[in-house]
Amino acid sequence: MAAKLKTAVLGASGYSGMELIRLLTRHSRLDTPLLLRRSAESQSSRQEGELLAELPWNGNGHSGARITPFSWAALKSHDVKVLFLATPPEVSRELVPEARVRGLRVVDLSGAWRLKQAEHRKVYGFRDADADIAAQLDAAAVYGLPELRGRDISVADLVANPGCYATSVILALAPLLSADIVRRDYGIVSDSKSGVSGAGKEPSARTHFVSVADNFSAYSVFGHRHTGEIVEQLRLGSHELIFTPHLLPIPRGILSTIYVHLKDEMTAQHIDDCLRGFYRGKRWVRVFPAANLPQIQNSIYSNYCDIGFSLAPDGKRLVLVSCLDNLLKGAAGQAVQNMNLMCGWDEGEGLN
Amino acid sequence: MAAKLKTAVLGASGYSGMELIRLLTRHSRLDTPLLLRRSAESQSSRQEGELLAELPWNGNGHSGARITPFSWAALKSHDVKVLFLATPPEVSRELVPEARVRGLRVVDLSGAWRLKQAEHRKVYGFRDADADIAAQLDAAAVYGLPELRGRDISVADLVANPGCYATSVILALAPLLSADIVRRDYGIVSDSKSGVSGAGKEPSARTHFVSVADNFSAYSVFGHRHTGEIVEQLRLGSHELIFTPHLLPIPRGILSTIYVHLKDEMTAQHIDDCLRGFYRGKRWVRVFPAANLPQIQNSIYSNYCDIGFSLAPDGKRLVLVSCLDNLLKGAAGQAVQNMNLMCGWDEGEGLN
Amino acid sequence: MAAKLKTAVLGASGYSGMELIRLLTRHSRLDTPLLLRRSAESQSSRQEGELLAELPWNGNGHSGARITPFSWAALKSHDVKVLFLATPPEVSRELVPEARVRGLRVVDLSGAWRLKQAEHRKVYGFRDADADIAAQLDAAAVYGLPELRGRDISVADLVANPGCYATSVILALAPLLSADIVRRDYGIVSDSKSGVSGAGKEPSARTHFVSVADNFSAYSVFGHRHTGEIVEQLRLGSHELIFTPHLLPIPRGILSTIYVHLKDEMTAQHIDDCLRGFYRGKRWVRVFPAANLPQIQNSIYSNYCDIGFSLAPDGKRLVLVSCLDNLLKGAAGQAVQNMNLMCGWDEGEGLN
Amino acid sequence: MAAKLKTAVLGASGYSGMELIRLLTRHSRLDTPLLLRRSAESQSSRQEGELLAELPWNGNGHSGARITPFSWAALKSHDVKVLFLATPPEVSRELVPEARVRGLRVVDLSGAWRLKQAEHRKVYGFRDADADIAAQLDAAAVYGLPELRGRDISVADLVANPGCYATSVILALAPLLSADIVRRDYGIVSDSKSGVSGAGKEPSARTHFVSVADNFSAYSVFGHRHTGEIVEQLRLGSHELIFTPHLLPIPRGILSTIYVHLKDEMTAQHIDDCLRGFYRGKRWVRVFPAANLPQIQNSIYSNYCDIGFSLAPDGKRLVLVSCLDNLLKGAAGQAVQNMNLMCGWDEGEGLN
Repeated sequence: MAAKLKTAVLGASGYSGMELIRLLTRHSRLDTPLLLRRSAESQSSRQEGELLAELPWNGNGHSGARITPFSWAALKSHDVKVLFLATPPEVSRELVPEARVRGLRVVDLSGAWRLKQAEHRKVYGFRDADADIAAQLDAAAVYGLPELRGRDISVADLVANPGCYATSVILALAPLLSADIVRRDYGIVSDSKSGVSGAGKEPSARTHFVSVADNFSAYSVFGHRHTGEIVEQLRLGSHELIFTPHLLPIPRGILSTIYVHLKDEMTAQHIDDCLRGFYRGKRWVRVFPAANLPQIQNSIYSNYCDIGFSLAPDGKRLVLVSCLDNLLKGAAGQAVQNMNLMCGWDEGEGLN
Repeated sequence: MAAKLKTAVLGASGYSGMELIRLLTRHSRLDTPLLLRRSAESQSSRQEGELLAELPWNGNGHSGARITPFSWAALKSHDVKVLFLATPPEVSRELVPEARVRGLRVVDLSGAWRLKQAEHRKVYGFRDADADIAAQLDAAAVYGLPELRGRDISVADLVANPGCYATSVILALAPLLSADIVRRDYGIVSDSKSGVSGAGKEPSARTHFVSVADNFSAYSVFGHRHTGEIVEQLRLGSHELIFTPHLLPIPRGILSTIYVHLKDEMTAQHIDDCLRGFYRGKRWVRVFPAANLPQIQNSIYSNYCDIGFSLAPDGKRLVLVSCLDNLLKGAAGQAVQNMNLMCGWDEGEGLN
Repeated sequence: MAAKLKTAVLGASGYSGMELIRLLTRHSRLDTPLLLRRSAESQSSRQEGELLAELPWNGNGHSGARITPFSWAALKSHDVKVLFLATPPEVSRELVPEARVRGLRVVDLSGAWRLKQAEHRKVYGFRDADADIAAQLDAAAVYGLPELRGRDISVADLVANPGCYATSVILALAPLLSADIVRRDYGIVSDSKSGVSGAGKEPSARTHFVSVADNFSAYSVFGHRHTGEIVEQLRLGSHELIFTPHLLPIPRGILSTIYVHLKDEMTAQHIDDCLRGFYRGKRWVRVFPAANLPQIQNSIYSNYCDIGFSLAPDGKRLVLVSCLDNLLKGAAGQAVQNMNLMCGWDEGEGLN
Repeated sequence: MAAKLKTAVLGASGYSGMELIRLLTRHSRLDTPLLLRRSAESQSSRQEGELLAELPWNGNGHSGARITPFSWAALKSHDVKVLFLATPPEVSRELVPEARVRGLRVVDLSGAWRLKQAEHRKVYGFRDADADIAAQLDAAAVYGLPELRGRDISVADLVANPGCYATSVILALAPLLSADIVRRDYGIVSDSKSGVSGAGKEPSARTHFVSVADNFSAYSVFGHRHTGEIVEQLRLGSHELIFTPHLLPIPRGILSTIYVHLKDEMTAQHIDDCLRGFYRGKRWVRVFPAANLPQIQNSIYSNYCDIGFSLAPDGKRLVLVSCLDNLLKGAAGQAVQNMNLMCGWDEGEGLN
């Protein structure tokens, strides 16, 4: 039996980080992951204790899991091969250059390295210490959507794990745009809705239970950070897409309702063939039969992205519905899927 | 002081019917409403008792409210002037001809008389006893959206109270279409979301708590009954609108996110002027300042329809957000507003 | 027509404060309330704007409501007669002595003046500037539960508005303890559950939507601040009551399930007589028929406290269920009820 | 490698049945389970299709799972060794005698065989075809709570899987009653709260989303069917326990808050020792440290029963909190745990 691979997770206290730890801990080819925090965060032992108590697989504290301060030396002494970053994007921008020098392969769950075009990166306002190295890494980073970039991911050293919304929108649209059957000039609309874990664990007026329950709202219209990923990956002009996020009063899950005009009149069978053909052999995308639309309950707690569609009677207007779990296929699950590809393992290891 | 008007409500046991009774009971110009049920429904005294216990304003049963069997004689003996129908549409089709013969003014909360075009009425599958009379009533019925048809409503004998979704979509789009600034050929999208009371009180697998909670789903894509109302009232071609309803895990409220392309580049001030100009003096529509989008919590438990918008940086693509309470401005509140107009009273009587 | 009374609210930004403003604004005998904030809180005009936007009756900002900085001069220049404090208890301890000197009548929604016994006040850790004056006010303050202390309230200058949990527990138990039919030595249990607005508006890990939704938990077992109020008002020994609060995944409402042993075997009719006799003429307490237990939905958005019971077949063990809206009968509604009594008005003014 | 065991599930369409199928399908020692329905239920192929679509692990219909009509011949031809019944209790009463004749080992998730005393069985109103055989089976059936009856279960042919509420209450109280430290004459209170899946999948007014959301209520006070199980297993007099179930607005999970008086003054360490000692080596019960109370979120989606406690400062009154997932440790998970014991396997097989 092969030796088990050592991984590390920096930023284990957020929702994605906790899901990631849960997945890595159960992964049969991995050694127990090294859990790290930056010295700036949660210094006190009290907070550390709280964090551990919150980990759902950790129960009443009998788990041996401990979160220790980050240092390059710690990574080296544990012989870590793959580093997962569940950090704010500006922290990732700071750490990845050094990580690469030290030969670590990185899966970055933040938005730090997802965008190829400087124009799109502007929304993040990065201030790179060394602009040349940052530019090299921007160019080298592989957008970690395995269904589209599987080959590149398998040889990548820096994988930019996609945004949760972006994953749901790109996977629904890629087959149709690849088949060139969409009228882009009429505009594509993605009306997307996410559960509250997508807004992060930091308490705020916006995530207070009383603000969210019995409510529903749109936000960041014409200004959400995931827009750049979507247009870049789908090679759309920025005027060809409207992406509108909304906050759902549920803990987890994303549903995107996507509206496209078709160039020519088509049948449901055409659309079905297009989607199924594109995703043949891709186990984590499930195409639903025509007019049988996925719901959020179908995909949460799994790594699936579910895609369904309904075609107008005129055969020229199409509604796609795409669902996934924002913490799994939209974050930690996809990160594990990427690691599997990077290591040459079965794409589903540790995800069933 | 003027004598109080006598009203009756047939179908008081549904969510809209219960809200309507609550509003009518508090209305200062009305006598206690006569509450009626068809003999077919809830015959037993047990069910009657249940019904009363459920009325929220009725508390522990001390209210004098009683639901009695429907008969034309009962309406006559109580000298009822305005009859509210909170009945299935086929029941309304059956009763309204007789009600009109008997000189009753009717506010019908069902979809029975909302549609002018036979093609759109098909989805209801009406089987009228007397086709000629039905056709006359179809022609005479006034679509009860006070902000658009106030004058007609004030003299109407049969008011077709609009659908909840339709109200939210029509009120958001009417100003822009009236100003002729929308590119209809690019298609208008209304991605609409409703709380569960919109699905009615009848228990079903779809409205079971476990099916709805932690979930979100689209339904009736390209086939919802309110579509005909929207295109008729806005004079849209049926290919010019996609209307997609979704089920939100909340008890009440509707939010519609509406996407339009503009003919010419515009500023937020243009859009604001257009909306505010159209609704000047209309107290139940609140226009929000640019980029300040309404949320469902703002309008529930009120008769307001809240409208906000966000304009793309290119000035050519517009997102409108429209919110209301599906049981108030989307049903019972609007029915009272219509009655107020029919009686020549202030539009806000009994709605504050 | 009598001149309208001027009131002021300090601390208008919390949930109770917002409900209070809504009620006072609609109250027919009151002038528009003066809304105040302490200079320490929400200084910036930006925050002020946010606050106003959140007030649900304020809609899109057209209301004239403005929150201005607190000063004694402002109270005087507006000729304020009744001051409502929706402040943290330590702020109330600081302000009330001066308010009394200035002749203001005060309704304090905080826990500052509710407790008569120093031992019970310990949990608050008050540090009074002038211990003698504080002691005088502790003695003079009237516990503002109108169904029990109506006469005292009507002549009081300082009314300590009860805690939300305490109101639900005291109102259920008072009739039985007053009739001396309870075996106290066997212990009384109040297992109480509250919606999240009871935990306040301050964002925290505990009130984050993801922490509350799909969850339920007990807290402050054997240590909640309302325990002292309950035992004092009911004259219980501190060992005679266990009060356990729980956090419900709903925005508002309290349900207390209360367990008592009876001294003698009784019938449901006995209990019913006991409860109804005690609350005869008290409009805001509704006694439900035997075995017909109130639910949270019955009382929220109203000022009612609903009380029901179920008696064991042995006639010796009794379960009481008490429900109310924690922001209304449990806070702002009761405050208005108290003000009505203080002013000699009908107890229900502004509360229907 | 050993041949895999064949199991069958009758009644796969309810919530417990679906969870059970999910667990059995993943269990490494089992062949694919045979899924059965009684001919009376869901005859049409349409309903069958719906059922499959609802199974969460079944996704978009690619699973090979099919539910076929029940017959003894089918069980025989598939060489089924263990039959799981997720049926109404009266169906179980009817089928188990024949199943035993045919040599099948049965795990019955219904309440059919849980009660030893005829008096307690009355609430079910069973009408047995053969009273003698029913009496033999009543006597032979083993109450399937592995932490208490592990040895009996391992050799049982008929295991009565406990009720969800009963599991949560019995596991919390058994250690204390076994240690004889409880004052039973003062009465034990279990105030228990369950998510809606505990009320079953059948749509009803009670489980309608609008009835449950934003609400909370007690039900079946002094009359719930699980009461008999609790008093029998804990050997309590029926006057020594009050068990009050409540309906929580969440999909799954149970929390019981349990109140006991202690005979003698004790320390938290005593209680901790008592609980931990009792559950030493029992992996599916987690004892929380003193004053660290479990929440529903800790145990859902797992087979754990979490137990915590808080002791009054007087050392004589104790609050226990017990949490579990009503569909797992409260139903399907415990059924698998029982099967593991019956087959001599590790208790945790298929449950991690």
